[in-house]
Amino acid sequence: MRQRNVKNKKEIINSSKYFIVNPSFYKGKWHCLFNNSNPIYIEIGMGKGKFIIENAIRYPNINFIGIEKYDSILALALKKIPELSNLYMIRLDAKDIDSVFDKEIEKIYLNFSDPWPKNRHEKRRLTSKSFLEKYDLIFYDKNIIEFKTDNKDLFCYSIKSFNNYGYFIEDITFDLYNRGDLDNITTEYEEKFTKINKSIYKIKVTKCKI
Amino acid sequence: MRQRNVKNKKEIINSSKYFIVNPSFYKGKWHCLFNNSNPIYIEIGMGKGKFIIENAIRYPNINFIGIEKYDSILALALKKIPELSNLYMIRLDAKDIDSVFDKEIEKIYLNFSDPWPKNRHEKRRLTSKSFLEKYDLIFYDKNIIEFKTDNKDLFCYSIKSFNNYGYFIEDITFDLYNRGDLDNITTEYEEKFTKINKSIYKIKVTKCKI
Repeated sequence: MRQRNVKNKKEIINSSKYFIVNPSFYKGKWHCLFNNSNPIYIEIGMGKGKFIIENAIRYPNINFIGIEKYDSILALALKKIPELSNLYMIRLDAKDIDSVFDKEIEKIYLNFSDPWPKNRHEKRRLTSKSFLEKYDLIFYDKNIIEFKTDNKDLFCYSIKSFNNYGYFIEDITFDLYNRGDLDNITTEYEEKFTKINKSIYKIKVTKCKI
Repeated sequence: MRQRNVKNKKEIINSSKYFIVNPSFYKGKWHCLFNNSNPIYIEIGMGKGKFIIENAIRYPNINFIGIEKYDSILALALKKIPELSNLYMIRLDAKDIDSVFDKEIEKIYLNFSDPWPKNRHEKRRLTSKSFLEKYDLIFYDKNIIEFKTDNKDLFCYSIKSFNNYGYFIEDITFDLYNRGDLDNITTEYEEKFTKINKSIYKIKVTKCKI
């Protein structure tokens, strides 16, 4: 996501009770922070947070953690959180995801991830094999990934990547909106795209531990 | 493919040396008919035959068998074959494919197959699980399927079907023409679609015997 500088981002971040300063401290014990044993779902690259905040409101019996690497965007997301006990946010580069979680995540959301279109940047795509290997380390039992994008090339790439890594496809659509998915919670990007009738691709994949 | 009646179709079919009247006779022994041990590739639903005839011309060291269920279309295809020793055509409903071949096919081409869009007709789609099960019986060693279509919904369905049946994706594109696939041999349909800039989807999948 392109970032616009938010002037008082540091103050917003450091004063928010929803921001976890040192997330690696909770590695393997995030349930202690939430103080319950409900499933933990994370969104990697949450942007301004609309998707994960609305999820947290709708599903109080799920714990959510939003991950974003840019301070300005993180600050905008933190500002929007209403009173909630099932949502935290952390600042992290996705490549370090396995330094913060350990066999405790039940679902990963990837929404409108950076497509990194150049071949030499393939490993940076959040659906590349190198990331799928990291995700294996953080999933609790069954791996569940839900991925939405408007980028045809990234979607095509991701199908191949999930398939060849042994994922099962639970659901796939090339046109989320014309299918009429009433339960869908949108991101900020998604709202814009659907207004101009751009197709949204979605896939839900699962993999059981071997 | 919609069929237009060809008046003398019976004569064309029965007088063609490329037409095999009783294909089940060759089950398990198609190599004897070709009189060599070259790989055998088949196209299920070959339509008017452009694709398979051009393949047979370009690849003389591969044996080809074109399959079509409608007499009128089959007659049009048979009429077009130049002098070739590596191509035969048969009349068959795809659901009977395993009555005609037995562990001897090295590649299946599916081009612009009928999408059968209604849910209750799912089993008729040539990429449905029920067909993938039949294909297992006719492949020699490694399964190789190349599938092209302009139908987004059928492509989406087929990805899920191949994936969940254990196929590996060798290649996938949502836009064959803009990728610039110079080796591609087109079908009659494909020529029309690309002229009007319609996207052609293609996937190549493989599966090794367990």
